[in-house]
Formats: sequence, structure tokens, C-alpha cells
Amino acid sequence: MTEPDEMIDRLEELIDARDASGASALLEALPAVEQSRFIDRLDDDTQEDLMMLVTPEQAASLLEKMPEAQAEDILDGLAPERAADIMEELDSDAVADLLGTLEDDEAEAILHEMEPEEAADARELLAYDEDTAGGLMRSEFLAYPLDATVGSVTEDMRSNAETYTDYDVQYAYIVDADERPVGVLRLRDLLLSTPATPVTKIMLPRPLVVHHAMELDELAQLFDDKGFVGLPVVDDEKKLVGVVMRKSVREAAADDVAEDFLKVSGLGGREELRSMPLVVRSRRRLSWLSINILLNVLAASVIAAYQDTLAQVIALAVFLPIISDMSGCSGSQAVAVSIRELALGLVRPVEMMRVLGKEMALGCINGLALGALLAVVALLWKGNPWLGAVVGGALMVNTIVAVSLGGLIPLALKRFDFDPALASGPILTTVTDMCGFFFVLSLATMLLPHLV
Amino acid sequence: MTEPDEMIDRLEELIDARDASGASALLEALPAVEQSRFIDRLDDDTQEDLMMLVTPEQAASLLEKMPEAQAEDILDGLAPERAADIMEELDSDAVADLLGTLEDDEAEAILHEMEPEEAADARELLAYDEDTAGGLMRSEFLAYPLDATVGSVTEDMRSNAETYTDYDVQYAYIVDADERPVGVLRLRDLLLSTPATPVTKIMLPRPLVVHHAMELDELAQLFDDKGFVGLPVVDDEKKLVGVVMRKSVREAAADDVAEDFLKVSGLGGREELRSMPLVVRSRRRLSWLSINILLNVLAASVIAAYQDTLAQVIALAVFLPIISDMSGCSGSQAVAVSIRELALGLVRPVEMMRVLGKEMALGCINGLALGALLAVVALLWKGNPWLGAVVGGALMVNTIVAVSLGGLIPLALKRFDFDPALASGPILTTVTDMCGFFFVLSLATMLLPHLV
Repeated sequence: MTEPDEMIDRLEELIDARDASGASALLEALPAVEQSRFIDRLDDDTQEDLMMLVTPEQAASLLEKMPEAQAEDILDGLAPERAADIMEELDSDAVADLLGTLEDDEAEAILHEMEPEEAADARELLAYDEDTAGGLMRSEFLAYPLDATVGSVTEDMRSNAETYTDYDVQYAYIVDADERPVGVLRLRDLLLSTPATPVTKIMLPRPLVVHHAMELDELAQLFDDKGFVGLPVVDDEKKLVGVVMRKSVREAAADDVAEDFLKVSGLGGREELRSMPLVVRSRRRLSWLSINILLNVLAASVIAAYQDTLAQVIALAVFLPIISDMSGCSGSQAVAVSIRELALGLVRPVEMMRVLGKEMALGCINGLALGALLAVVALLWKGNPWLGAVVGGALMVNTIVAVSLGGLIPLALKRFDFDPALASGPILTTVTDMCGFFFVLSLATMLLPHLV
Repeated sequence: MTEPDEMIDRLEELIDARDASGASALLEALPAVEQSRFIDRLDDDTQEDLMMLVTPEQAASLLEKMPEAQAEDILDGLAPERAADIMEELDSDAVADLLGTLEDDEAEAILHEMEPEEAADARELLAYDEDTAGGLMRSEFLAYPLDATVGSVTEDMRSNAETYTDYDVQYAYIVDADERPVGVLRLRDLLLSTPATPVTKIMLPRPLVVHHAMELDELAQLFDDKGFVGLPVVDDEKKLVGVVMRKSVREAAADDVAEDFLKVSGLGGREELRSMPLVVRSRRRLSWLSINILLNVLAASVIAAYQDTLAQVIALAVFLPIISDMSGCSGSQAVAVSIRELALGLVRPVEMMRVLGKEMALGCINGLALGALLAVVALLWKGNPWLGAVVGGALMVNTIVAVSLGGLIPLALKRFDFDPALASGPILTTVTDMCGFFFVLSLATMLLPHLV
């Protein structure tokens, strides 16, 4: 047993002995990811005990550092009263993010136990779509009226320093009588001005604001274009309702890439941790595998239709899985390029002809290379050039089909608002398998006299 | 032709007519990702013309917003003198990033043309490993001596406001006579103090510093643990040499996830854009495909060894690609979970027994479900329960093998310092194909009397 594993046992003992300060001291000595890993190793009951044992502040800080799936799992198991106490220690956007991962009735039970004001804040944020400015913003921000001065603002910041530290303040906003943002104050400008200066004199007027429904893509572009650290978010009446931070947008965008990875790998984009219950993990993976096996049976039915040919040239059976796998690989490369180009905004879904042209050209070169290679293998093995021509030719043609389709499928799915990362793989492999089996077996049937 | 495409034509005309202000006006009216897409659509010569036409500042700002692969491609085509002019408009870390993507002799040619001082800065940064604090830091920062006062610092900031705006200043560092950082000044503390205050009074003493060789993983953890926006980087003598920003660390970490995606998809982790030359794209994709086809031939040789059995039960040929594909899918899910858990630090490479236990349990459930499904398909099709037992049993056993291996391979690769995202897929599919083919065909050989 390695040293850290002994420390996990030690943590378990401390929790079992209800030693709150011992358990927190052990955890606090660890870096964040090790904290998450240690907690991940405890069984569900012990995790719950730990969350009851430490202070709500400590529990909140532990939850905040965990991968979302892990935090969700733990919150799930906690009594709503305790979960509410912990939620009250977190930023409004963190509360909304965590409650958003739970089932509606579980989130409601926790909200019910929270301070009415904080629950109302969280409910408001929860009402926004996850990947919009409203869903990404925090409702804590600094706003001052038009008649404020540098002195009054500095005075307010000084006297509320405690509260504002948590706000991660970079700007303050100047709002008119209708709570509409009319200017932005930068900290550095406050620094360089005398107390009597009216804020209207040093604020940047007509600030850029974003509507709460602005989508993640557009926000990410905006932050890329301009150097802002945060942007004010307004509602339909143009009232200031929150601030969306560059950091939150970046994190959400990075999560999207990670999600694509989980989707392409057949995990439906949801994070799986091995500490989750076996049935949950098994069910999630099976939901995708069971669709896939049916698609596989469909593709294999093409082979079944050519059993007579196969029976006469049994060597073909050796090449069918090769052609299926190689076409899948060639196609996946093209899928990945399209998904990346879509994510980077370098291709638009309507540009199908451009992608088709580019991929067909590449398909011809790679198809020729791979087809020739496979033909040589077949020739060396059986000494029959016709067999080489059949399997090599089929692989060549199918490579062109696979890369063209692989390039186009993500664009087509995106155009009709389906998720390219989720659906491209199964569609691609089913179609390329069917085509590949058809090419090799129909070609073989035509050339049967030369093959037997 | 859609409207934006007409605008690309218009851009091309403006460039051909050498209309610098027209071309910049058109580009500047676009959001960043559209700028990159427009430039991506121009042919290589026109891209080069554009970079010569606009000012170096404008060219720098265009390059900075592009995906790295695109910027590399454009820099590649520019005369070193022009490239050097453009580089001089960028932050030291951006210069190092861009030059780092070029071949050594190309980067050297550009450095040779740059102002000696800026070239020296870039060379220094280039000497550091890419994913370390040194490689991620910028060499622009604010440092003041121990005897500075709030007044002298504010005065310096005020008079150099122009230069410092580009530094993205959040902190200033206080250094001793040996240039070692001894304190951090926060902007907000400057704001709340009188000019006569010595900086030593308001600085945060004994600042956390990181050594230039600290790796990305560790940096990401550090920024996750603490709320810093930036951290001072020191050399072997503990001298302050740069500042690594949270932003750069986050970006590098997000790039790593994107790279994993490109590796798993058989693109070797390098970004491919469809605007790259056909031969480059084809060669890069083929380098992986040609390894893969050899592994496929190796796996298929198992089938070749059982030709006699296949010839007698030709229906088996229909199931071979299904078993190969389904095992691959089950295994990929487990690979993805391991790669994610490794990236999140939730599993360590030595925990192989834990992963094996978790995956074998899951493999039994999913193997049973998928095996039963395939057995039913075989039974319905041929009416022979023995055939169902052979293909269903083989898929069941092979699913257990595939998920166990899929979970373990990334850990084993990581342990011996290979890249899990790059090598897990090919190793997994080759082994599971060989096992799957062996299970179904050897089982069929044993039960041959019941199958014919």
C-alpha cells in the first residue's frame, strides 16, 4: 500500500471518530485535486459524514474544487438542510451551477431550506439557460449612482472591504435612476484621481453591455475581441442584473471541448467517475452501446446478403474487419477536423461544397496509399492479384467515401441543430461499414471466376 | 453565394488593389473569429499580400486572434524582416509561442531581424520548455525596490501609463538588491493608502513564487487552490524573471484537452485546418493510418488461422466485424474515463487494481447485456441456439476484456511516460480485435458439430 492510500485510511478513521479538526487539518494540507481524490475514495456514507462534520464554509470550499460530477454526487446524498447551509457559503453563480446539476425536486428541497434572499438569487440565476450570459453571470457586483464621487466610492469600498473581497472586483458600474448601466469605473482610474472628482468624469461612458440571453459562442468571441475582464449583463428593460466574467466564459468554453471528447468516446458528454454507483455507470454506457450494436447488426446485414460469395472466397472474411476499421479511422479524422473547425468558427455549416472538395482530394491520395498497401498484403498472402485488386480497390473507394462523409456529417448535423460530437461517430461508422462491405463483396461477386 | 462569401471576394479585391485602409476597415468591422475565417479563405499569396499591406500593429493583432496552426502557416510564408516587424508589436510570451511553432531555422531568421533587446527576450522565453512556468510566463512586469513608497510607485505608474497598459497589470512586485521578490503590492492596496506610505508597509511579504521549471499540472493546481491572477516566476538564483498569469495557465490546460481530442481522433494532437496544403494534411493523417492498417492486418491474421472453421460456418463472418466494433466501443468508453480521471488528478497511474476491479464489474454487466442481445439476433436469424451461444458468449467475454484493458491502458502508458491519448486507441483495438476473433472462432471450432 502506498503512502497516500494510508492517508486515505487515516482520513476515514478521523471521520469515523468524529474528529472534525483532525479531518480538516489533513484535507487542508493537501492540494485541491488531492482533496477531491481523497474524498472520491471514501464510501458514500463516509463522504456524507465528512460533509456533516466540517463547517459549512469548509464543506463549500471542498465542493467548489471538485469536478462537477463529483460535487453533484455528494450533494445528492446530503440532507437538504445541510446542503442549504453549504450553498449559503458559495457565490451565486456557483450555487446555480451546482443546483443546476441536480434533479428539479432535489434542487427545490435545498432552495426551500436556504435564506429566502439567497434562494431568490439562486432561483433567478437558475431560470437562465446554462450556456447564456444569464446562466454564466454572478449577481454580486458594485453599482453606484450617477452623483457618486471618487471619494464616496472609495469610502464605500473601504467600509465594505470584507464583503467586496468575495466579489472579485475589477470594475464598478455607474447606473442611472432606472438601474441601467451608463458607465464603468476602472480600479486603476480611481487610484489616479482625487477624492472630489465626480465619477462621471472618469468613468468610461456608454459601456458595452450584453443581454442575458447572449449565447456562449458569442460571449467567447466578445471576450476574445476585447480585453475585458468582465461585462455587465442586462435584462429586457436594460437593467443591470449581473456581471459575466471572462473566467466563467473561458471555463464554460473549455468544458465544451471536454464534453465533446466525452461524446465522441460514447459517454454522452456526461462526466463519469469510477466512484459513481456501478448501475449508473453501466446504464449510461449501455444506453449508447445498445444503439450501436443495432447499427452494427444493420451494417453486417450487407455481409449476410453476400454469403454465397463469401463461402466461395473465404479469404474475404479476413479483410472485412480491416476495411471496416480503416474506413472508420479515416472518417474519424475528418470528423475531428470538422468539429474543431466548427468550434473555432473557421467553417460554417453551409460551406459543405468547400469541405467536400477538400476532403475528396485528400481521400483520393490516402485511399490510393491505403488501398495499394492492402492490395500488396492480399497479393503476398494468397498470390492472387485479383484478390488484391478487390480488397485494395474497395478500400480505396471506401476511404474517399469515409473522409468525405466524415467531413460533411458534423456540418450537416450542426445545420439541423443536432450535436455533431454526439451523433457523427455512429452515423459515420454505420454508413461506411455498409458501403465498405458492399464494395468489397459486390466487386468480389463480379470477379468471382478470378477469385476461386 | 451567401453574403459573407461576397465579402471575402471584396476583401480579395481590396488586397489586390493594394487598398490598405479599405482592407483593414473591412476586417476590423468583423468579430475576431470571422477575421480568422476570412483570412483562412484567401490563397497563400493573398494572405501574404495582406500581411505586407496592413501596418505591423494590425498584422500582429490579426495573428494574435488566430488558431495557432493558422498563425504558424502565415508566418511561414512571410519574409523574415516583415515577420520580425510584426513580432515586435506582440507581448514577449506571444512572440515565444508563435516562434515556438516554427522550424528552428525559420524562427532564427526572424529573431535575427528583430531589435536585439526584444529578440533576446524572446530567445530567453523560447529556451524554456513549452508547458512550464518559464514557457508560459511573460517577461513584462512591474518591479520596485524595497525603499519605494506608495507615492513613488503611483508616480511611476502614472508616467508610464502608456507602456504599462499592455502589461495587464494586477500586481507590482517588490524586489531586494539581488532582484529576488520579497513582496507583492496589490492595486487595491495602493488605492487605499496615502502617498507617503512605504511599500514595505502594505506589501504582502514572503510572496509565493514558482520556479521556471514548474510543470503545467502543478501550476494549474496552484491557481485552482489559491485565488491569484498571476504568480512571480524565479530562476535558479531566485531572481524574478517573469510573471505567469492564471489566464495563460488556463489556456494551456484547455489546449491540452483539445489536443487529447485530436490525438484520440488519430490526428496526432496537431491541429489541422482545411486551408493547409493538401500534401501536409494527407501526410499527417497517413502517418497514423499506416500504423493502424498494419495493426489491423496483425489482428486479422487470427481470422486467417481459422479459415477452415469459417468455411464451414460462413455466418460467423457476419459477426466478426460486429464483435470487433462493439468491443472497440466498450473499450473506448473506459479509455475516455481513464484519460479524464488522469487529467483531473482523480486517479493515479499506480491505482491499477482499483480501476481493474471497477471495470471488470462493469464489464460483466455490460458484457452480459450485449452478449445476450447479440445471441438473440443470431438465434432469430439462423434459428440455431448454438450459434447464438458462440457469438453472444464471445462478445460477453470480450467486453470484459475490452473495458478492463480500456481502463488500464491509459494508466500503464502514463506510468511509463507515454501519452495515453495518443497510443491507447490503437493498442486497445488491436488487442481486443485479436481476442474477439480468437474467442468467437476457437469457440466455434470446439462446437463445430452443433453449428454446421
